[in-house]
Amino acid sequence: MWSDPYYLKRDGGEDVAVLLVDTQGMFDHETTVGLTAAIFGLSTLLSSYQIYNVDKRIQEDNLQQLALFTEYGRMAFENEEKAAATKDAPGERVEGETGGAAVPQQPFQKIEFLVRDWQNFETEDEQDLDSMEREMAEYLEHVTAERSATDLKETREQINSCFEEISCFMMTHPGFAVIKNKYEGDVSKIESLFMGLLDRYCQRVFSTETSAGGAPPRLQPKTVRGRELSAVELGTYIKSYALMFEKIGANFPKAETMLEATSKANNANAITVSTETYTELMNEIAGPHVHDYHQAEELMTRHREASKRALSAFVDMANFGSRKAIDDAREKVLLKISKDFEVFRSLNDGRNPLLGLE
Amino acid sequence: MWSDPYYLKRDGGEDVAVLLVDTQGMFDHETTVGLTAAIFGLSTLLSSYQIYNVDKRIQEDNLQQLALFTEYGRMAFENEEKAAATKDAPGERVEGETGGAAVPQQPFQKIEFLVRDWQNFETEDEQDLDSMEREMAEYLEHVTAERSATDLKETREQINSCFEEISCFMMTHPGFAVIKNKYEGDVSKIESLFMGLLDRYCQRVFSTETSAGGAPPRLQPKTVRGRELSAVELGTYIKSYALMFEKIGANFPKAETMLEATSKANNANAITVSTETYTELMNEIAGPHVHDYHQAEELMTRHREASKRALSAFVDMANFGSRKAIDDAREKVLLKISKDFEVFRSLNDGRNPLLGLE
Ligand SMILES: Nc1nc2c(ncn2[C@@H]2O[C@H](COP(=O)(O)OP(=O)(O)O)[C@@H](O)[C@H]2O)c(=O)[nH]1
Ligand SMILES: Nc1nc2c(ncn2[C@@H]2O[C@H](COP(=O)(O)OP(=O)(O)O)[C@@H](O)[C@H]2O)c(=O)[nH]1
Ligand SMILES: [Mg+2]
Ligand SMILES: [Mg+2]
Repeated sequence: MWSDPYYLKRDGGEDVAVLLVDTQGMFDHETTVGLTAAIFGLSTLLSSYQIYNVDKRIQEDNLQQLALFTEYGRMAFENEEKAAATKDAPGERVEGETGGAAVPQQPFQKIEFLVRDWQNFETEDEQDLDSMEREMAEYLEHVTAERSATDLKETREQINSCFEEISCFMMTHPGFAVIKNKYEGDVSKIESLFMGLLDRYCQRVFSTETSAGGAPPRLQPKTVRGRELSAVELGTYIKSYALMFEKIGANFPKAETMLEATSKANNANAITVSTETYTELMNEIAGPHVHDYHQAEELMTRHREASKRALSAFVDMANFGSRKAIDDAREKVLLKISKDFEVFRSLNDGRNPLLGLE
Repeated sequence: MWSDPYYLKRDGGEDVAVLLVDTQGMFDHETTVGLTAAIFGLSTLLSSYQIYNVDKRIQEDNLQQLALFTEYGRMAFENEEKAAATKDAPGERVEGETGGAAVPQQPFQKIEFLVRDWQNFETEDEQDLDSMEREMAEYLEHVTAERSATDLKETREQINSCFEEISCFMMTHPGFAVIKNKYEGDVSKIESLFMGLLDRYCQRVFSTETSAGGAPPRLQPKTVRGRELSAVELGTYIKSYALMFEKIGANFPKAETMLEATSKANNANAITVSTETYTELMNEIAGPHVHDYHQAEELMTRHREASKRALSAFVDMANFGSRKAIDDAREKVLLKISKDFEVFRSLNDGRNPLLGLE
């Protein structure tokens, strides 16, 4: 976080304090998925204007990651709201005043994709930033347009349901001299188009006054449920959210790699299918709707058959991901079957006409 | 796929046919995760030398995606092996001959990260490709080095267990003139370092003879379990694998976005915790180890209490991801509880001392 806030004038002459926060990169080789989710979720919670840097283009996996990590932010947000409603914390909060503005449906304000090293502006004229900005808007439109395939669709719905506003800006490559390790900051070495776009971008991000054309300021104070926060309130929220994320291990679903999550889901399905196979087969002979008593040996034979069928259903399905996780899942199936067998035996015993006579 | 194979000489003078295959991009905005997994899995199955293009650096999410998609390849590979063992298909296959070579543990041969637009070679000398190649190897070493955090560790284990060899090559930016839409292929406009690296890379990829220094050829014929395939066998495998991937909807776990997979796992956990809460509470009064009969009203009261506790456990956990999926999961809990209640009632009835006397 930048050590001092900047003060900018708003419409009406009031000052608004701007805090700049830079987060660490998302997919370096030291940070776990869980920590990345926490960092991203927290920064989403705290920001009125969040900038998400992407390389060359907005890829579908960028959107997918945004959709996941934002969900952690949304969950923390709702937990905090719930806690505040019951415990009246944080104390400094003034409820209900939204300055007359309608409470927005989305928990967060603004996400902006900042595409770095954009390669393909249609316009050849480096001065024509206006038509470049139009291209940016068209590109975003194209990327976020509704899709029919479920996962593409749901990713877009998630992002739309979390942010009031989604926007996009593109920067070109700053030039080869600039990215060298030995570059020492000589501004004249930066590509002129990059400089032009950078200037335009800063004006855009830091606009806190209604433009001459009547466009509302892009940079808005941080709001919660439509209500602007004071600095003191923001401080209280930061503490409260940080606390929430400390609990990430306890109450939040574990953020995992796609391989972990997919194989875990597959194993869970295999457990369900397999134990249901067992229960269905055993229900026929000893379920709650059966009236006849069966000899212990017969029950045992059917139990063995049903177990075999259940395990074979398990083996057919559970062959994705870590061997150890599959073995653990298999143990769970065996345990569940043996518990269920106890129940079936007990049900069957209750139907023994000789019960109490032995 | 390139329309004609190239023929290159191997050690000993034999010809080897080289087929070049280019796949579509992985995360455009039209391709679902499932299709991406199928494309990547299939290309992994067919290739002896797979090149994975990444932008600027190897990111942790690149590794995670590789780990997931490769698992689909591995699963198809093992399914095919199983099917072949039982059904003797594909017919042309000659089993057992590995030319004396040991059967490798990994199903696939070679994956190479091709980093595009690499920014930071230490060496300043554009001619010194040898020291650049050393930097590449060091970088890969750094990226794939063992980690202690579980998800980083498991990602690396997965990749190591799937590929016999993992390597890395880096290309620099080809130059701004080249990436313009209007570029028409003028080779003189390409940056000289890019050309130098490209030349080095092609020599590397297409080396089919043991080098003067004794290094084995990088490009190896496609093998399965250590045995080299003929063109006819490769054709049979391609058909067989493609068939396998058509079944992706049926037998393969569904590839999903991280948000889908994480929220599905969370809902599944919430179902388990909640139904176990119910069963444990009800086991105390009417489980298979109970001997006493309880009045119907008493059982009903306890059932209501246990259901309430179970649902509250569900609500505490199931608050991540799509509302609809959460509601569906809640329905499953209610159904499971009502089925379990039938069992508990039936167990209890079996203990009724007045049974049959009524
Ligand atoms: N290609 C390219 N490189 C950049 C750009 N901005 C910074 N870099 C280089 O990327 C590297 C990392 O930059 P840094 O700002 O520290 O990125 P961070 O680690 O994501 O915060 C440095 O070598 C920079 O010179 C850009 O817009 N394009
Ligand atoms: N920065 C950069 N751009 C490249 C490079 N190679 C190709 N391009 C540009 O990237 C775009 C897509 O190239 P293409 O080869 O069709 O990529 P594909 O869609 O992934 O197969 C084109 O505009 C190319 O000019 C490279 O090494 N670096
Ligand atoms: Mg930084
Ligand atoms: Mg291509």
